[in-house]
Amino acid sequence: MKSTHKQNFIAVALIGALAFTTTIAHAADDPLPSWNDGKAKQSITEFVTKVTKEGSPDFVLPEERIATFDNDGTLWCEQPLYFQLLFALDRVKALAPQHPEWKTKEPFASLLKGDVKGALAGGEHAMLEIIIVTHAGMTTAEFEKIVADWIATAKHPKFKRSYTECVYQPMVELLAYLRANGFKTFIVSGGGIEFMRPWTEKVYGIPPEQVVGSSIKTKYEWRDGKPVLMRLPEMNFIDDKTGKPVGINSHIGRRPIAAFGNSDGDQQMLEWTQAGSGARLMMLVHHDDAVREFAYGTESKIGTFSDALMAEAKKDGWVVISMKDDWKWIFPFEK
Amino acid sequence: MKSTHKQNFIAVALIGALAFTTTIAHAADDPLPSWNDGKAKQSITEFVTKVTKEGSPDFVLPEERIATFDNDGTLWCEQPLYFQLLFALDRVKALAPQHPEWKTKEPFASLLKGDVKGALAGGEHAMLEIIIVTHAGMTTAEFEKIVADWIATAKHPKFKRSYTECVYQPMVELLAYLRANGFKTFIVSGGGIEFMRPWTEKVYGIPPEQVVGSSIKTKYEWRDGKPVLMRLPEMNFIDDKTGKPVGINSHIGRRPIAAFGNSDGDQQMLEWTQAGSGARLMMLVHHDDAVREFAYGTESKIGTFSDALMAEAKKDGWVVISMKDDWKWIFPFEK
Repeated sequence: MKSTHKQNFIAVALIGALAFTTTIAHAADDPLPSWNDGKAKQSITEFVTKVTKEGSPDFVLPEERIATFDNDGTLWCEQPLYFQLLFALDRVKALAPQHPEWKTKEPFASLLKGDVKGALAGGEHAMLEIIIVTHAGMTTAEFEKIVADWIATAKHPKFKRSYTECVYQPMVELLAYLRANGFKTFIVSGGGIEFMRPWTEKVYGIPPEQVVGSSIKTKYEWRDGKPVLMRLPEMNFIDDKTGKPVGINSHIGRRPIAAFGNSDGDQQMLEWTQAGSGARLMMLVHHDDAVREFAYGTESKIGTFSDALMAEAKKDGWVVISMKDDWKWIFPFEK
Repeated sequence: MKSTHKQNFIAVALIGALAFTTTIAHAADDPLPSWNDGKAKQSITEFVTKVTKEGSPDFVLPEERIATFDNDGTLWCEQPLYFQLLFALDRVKALAPQHPEWKTKEPFASLLKGDVKGALAGGEHAMLEIIIVTHAGMTTAEFEKIVADWIATAKHPKFKRSYTECVYQPMVELLAYLRANGFKTFIVSGGGIEFMRPWTEKVYGIPPEQVVGSSIKTKYEWRDGKPVLMRLPEMNFIDDKTGKPVGINSHIGRRPIAAFGNSDGDQQMLEWTQAGSGARLMMLVHHDDAVREFAYGTESKIGTFSDALMAEAKKDGWVVISMKDDWKWIFPFEK
């Protein structure tokens, strides 16, 4: 071995030792500083400790440490409307000059007059029409750019912050804490997979290949001498309710050992997670903080947290996170 | 810092240095020992060197180093029939006692008489019927066990080895070499996603969440007080030809920078890979070794390598791997 090599080894060894010191120092700090002490926080740290401790009866191999997270209402805010719907409304306005017929055609006519409630009175069909005109008919690359541009500039109506600032700081810490403990973190959301992927890596540290969501069909074709994927006006998959275990199986191919949601749409994901053998952690974010965020649940159309879900949580030992009591800060901009 | 902590750090540093020495020693060795020197091997090492060298104009961030591999005929053998079809034939035999009607019903009657050619004379419809009875009507967990049991015991008709031994040693080395250089390796196969996942991690080092394949629909339901995913007799997605870029986009959400195939079914995956900006590597395994494996191509129904594909490879600079000339050994059991 040449002496320069030897020096390199020593340098690397020292860097290794330094990195290790930093890890130790960090672990001595609280990895979840935005969580108040209480049952929710304790459930997390106890679960992580037991599944990562070699020799523990609950030890889980790193490759099996799969954690899945709903997005809307679990990782970021979902009020006054799902952000993807707010995106679609902005797109309708932007596209209106090219569609003079929308002035008299519902749901667009109401929307353009600012009457969101009237536009959505058409129910699922109206919603689908809005999604189709705003999400299909372009290439995947074009759609990615539209989303990236919107997310970089649009502001939340209540918080006057960009949408990616309206994420829950305690959940961002939880994602990082799980990954620091060998977990692979996935989003499993009813939202559009290609609406999330352009920004989840930067905001949550979750890469595109670990995002599962609803999708429309795409088609491979050639345009101007280049292959493209065209987004078609046809639903491919709805990743909600019973669709969540299906999406998890299809994309991940392993059962999660931990799952986090906030509404009836997450019920089956938590059931599916719990039905595996060994230690499991199921948690539900409860929106009970009207002052700092929004308070809603049983009666809300968006993010319904029904009495039946609450009953199942109690029966099955799912941990309900009170935003009011368990979270010191809700958004990163409060810190 | 306590002295025991200090000792721990020194131990960790030494282990780090040792690990590093091993890596260096390994890198000084040939990471692709089953590859003969030549254009194919050189294309791989040159590509990896330039995309991993910081400051190089071709440098690619680790998270963008996505490599996709076809499976049948690219990572393992696909003759005399796709192994999944051989699995299905074995399953028909195993299930026959429960289906007396198959004695007079095609394609099962021919199959049970050992006339595979006759059974498959019914074309795609016959194939689909065989797939449905052997792949649907059970839970995902039950199917996983059926596949795991079969793969642990069945033997290849020519090589008299288990199917997972009939993998290409040079490609297994290539997978490991890419991962050692920060790549994420994915399978993108026309084969069934749930037929591959039970064994790809052990055999290729590719975890279930990095396997993309064809699939049938599944449905979430409760059985005996537990949630299950039932496999339905209905195709969900065909991950072949133009389906490969669609599957890549759906599962990975990023464009690969390297792609490996062996047949017309991989053409669009290679086109899609090449159409991205920056350095790219596209390679095709050519089955031209009748002595050690099989020689087939233009005329073969399984793994067709058409003249048109060869022409596109030449025009676009895709590298054709000659199994005869470029591979020192083909299977692990030859070494």
